[in-house]
Amino acid sequence: MTTTAPITSPTQPASNSAAPASTTDPADTGPDPVTAAQRRTTEIEEQIRVAPGQFRILTGDRPTGPLHVGHYFGTLAGRVRLQRAGVPVFVLIADYQVLTDRDVADNLAGHVDGLIADYLAAGLDPAVSTIFAHSAVSALNQLMLPFLSLVSVAELGRNPTVKAEIAAAGQPAVSGLMLTYPVHQAADILFCRANLVPVGQDQLPHLELTRAIARRFNDRYAGGSAFFPVPDALLSAAPNLLGTDGRKMSKSRGNTINLSDSPDETARLLRRARTDAVREISYDPAGRPEVSSLLLLAALCQGRAPAEIAAEIGSRGAAELKRAAIESVNEFLRPHRARRAELIADRGYLRSVLRAGNAVAAEVADQTLGEVRALMGTTY
Amino acid sequence: MTTTAPITSPTQPASNSAAPASTTDPADTGPDPVTAAQRRTTEIEEQIRVAPGQFRILTGDRPTGPLHVGHYFGTLAGRVRLQRAGVPVFVLIADYQVLTDRDVADNLAGHVDGLIADYLAAGLDPAVSTIFAHSAVSALNQLMLPFLSLVSVAELGRNPTVKAEIAAAGQPAVSGLMLTYPVHQAADILFCRANLVPVGQDQLPHLELTRAIARRFNDRYAGGSAFFPVPDALLSAAPNLLGTDGRKMSKSRGNTINLSDSPDETARLLRRARTDAVREISYDPAGRPEVSSLLLLAALCQGRAPAEIAAEIGSRGAAELKRAAIESVNEFLRPHRARRAELIADRGYLRSVLRAGNAVAAEVADQTLGEVRALMGTTY
Repeated sequence: MTTTAPITSPTQPASNSAAPASTTDPADTGPDPVTAAQRRTTEIEEQIRVAPGQFRILTGDRPTGPLHVGHYFGTLAGRVRLQRAGVPVFVLIADYQVLTDRDVADNLAGHVDGLIADYLAAGLDPAVSTIFAHSAVSALNQLMLPFLSLVSVAELGRNPTVKAEIAAAGQPAVSGLMLTYPVHQAADILFCRANLVPVGQDQLPHLELTRAIARRFNDRYAGGSAFFPVPDALLSAAPNLLGTDGRKMSKSRGNTINLSDSPDETARLLRRARTDAVREISYDPAGRPEVSSLLLLAALCQGRAPAEIAAEIGSRGAAELKRAAIESVNEFLRPHRARRAELIADRGYLRSVLRAGNAVAAEVADQTLGEVRALMGTTY
Repeated sequence: MTTTAPITSPTQPASNSAAPASTTDPADTGPDPVTAAQRRTTEIEEQIRVAPGQFRILTGDRPTGPLHVGHYFGTLAGRVRLQRAGVPVFVLIADYQVLTDRDVADNLAGHVDGLIADYLAAGLDPAVSTIFAHSAVSALNQLMLPFLSLVSVAELGRNPTVKAEIAAAGQPAVSGLMLTYPVHQAADILFCRANLVPVGQDQLPHLELTRAIARRFNDRYAGGSAFFPVPDALLSAAPNLLGTDGRKMSKSRGNTINLSDSPDETARLLRRARTDAVREISYDPAGRPEVSSLLLLAALCQGRAPAEIAAEIGSRGAAELKRAAIESVNEFLRPHRARRAELIADRGYLRSVLRAGNAVAAEVADQTLGEVRALMGTTY
């Protein structure tokens, strides 16, 4: 039943319409904040090439299960690319946020270990990127308090995710943590003064609240200075990979190809993947979503265009398409899986990486909170 | 416009109706939680006489201005009594809660110093009671996160204070901090495992939410054990002292007699106090609220019954009543004011008391949060 968006979502690709304005503030650009965010993303990508050190990225995941190929191509690869481009990256394991839409977090430690193993296997380098957990950074969490004073109940209720939850499950079922999680997200982003947040377009409204909180804090307590950066969205051009049942790929639907799956498991899952009855394989995401998703998956793994792979398969049908997808995925993930297996066998090392990241995050958070307390006049 | 209840409220005396049941859980006692809480308070007061060490009290104030005589007789004297009876007392200076109903906290440091000076002057002993500030105890504030997952949006909206604010100012004006402050209050109480909270009866609903959070956490994460105590209300028999304008005594109305006022100031304020045209002075709180409030104030200061003082004044009218009240207050507060003046002249000492209290509270909070994290499976 989960509908809470993760910190970054790989499932909503940006549309390709032209950008009408160059401002960074969707409020000034008329009716299309997505288009504005896309244009701004293009500008930022150029700036990253020139001066990556002026940016700091906050991104992360909820530890609810293993990462899948959608996560890999949607977020993980992007983080590694940004890290390698020289942008400092903070990767948050949002363990408290697991509780927004479920009562108890199961196997949290196992999922956390799995995330760290996938991060490192994919190329995140703990010597330059900071991997940390929510629950380990008290000063970050304390920022919830002043930030809650800067937003209204009405604003919290306008959150589309909260609205969807209330529509689906009724207000009594929505927890206080769900209602307030965009404020917690603001604390995640602003504690380390991140000025760039990779998001899917469905998450732009959340980032707007973070931007509003940054502006209001600056106006109210910092004399209008840029104490907190007003962070920009980095819209991810996430590929539209479907699950094996043809629906959105999602842990909770059991339709995923996980990074931790074995080659045999991958083969078994992809052989069962839903396709259609047309023997001639073609890339047509709107008309043939399942076939096109398999083509896209193979294409991403091979670094080629989906249509090219479709032409190669031609009239050899779905079985050949699946064979190509299985081989592509297993070939592409082989080094990742080998590194991941080594890492997951050494939990002590994974935990030491997390502890070191927690320590860095705590130092940053203590520093920020100290300055926030001084600005608010709560140092006695 | 403030209607937020302070952590403890001296303004709502308990009624004196008979208690119908001996259970401690208002949910089991039918329609009158106040009566149940009164009965439970009587039981607890007896237990305190026998074994004070089994209790731990959380109480406190928002640093919004100077304490007045209503605070003194409503809460401050009670805290000192409990401390002297041997109950460990945690006194919270709720600096973040100042922001529930105003944008910016003015002169926070000054108000904090004033509170500490009044606490110590009244007899709170920093060697046995712990005086600390919200903003200095991150691990306490972090408890907001798990606790928010244990309450629903509907429950938060049922808070009478929030309802009153929404009715008065409209939902857009109500902040997220206002909506969630009963959850923060639960963190205040449970971080130090307080099992006793002095409250006015208007605050029983807030304590109910803390009790629910304690029970839910215990059930969900602690196998139903009593990890968190389910705290009891200690209903304060707060005297019904009115302000000099005949309305509820309140900092925001400017109708208070402050502990820090000079004798001359006290005389000037009380001489202007509202009374009535009947020359014969009598104690009749329902029929003659202003006259009765002055009698009660004099009586509290002299440790006598209000009717006795009324009889002494007889037909000498309001001027004589005011003279008696002025003399009683100034005589009673003379030692308090002398100690307070010495203390407020030594800000360095006041700050050292707060820092020491913050350190104790932080140690307690870190311990509790560590155990909470272990129970929730968020130690990696």
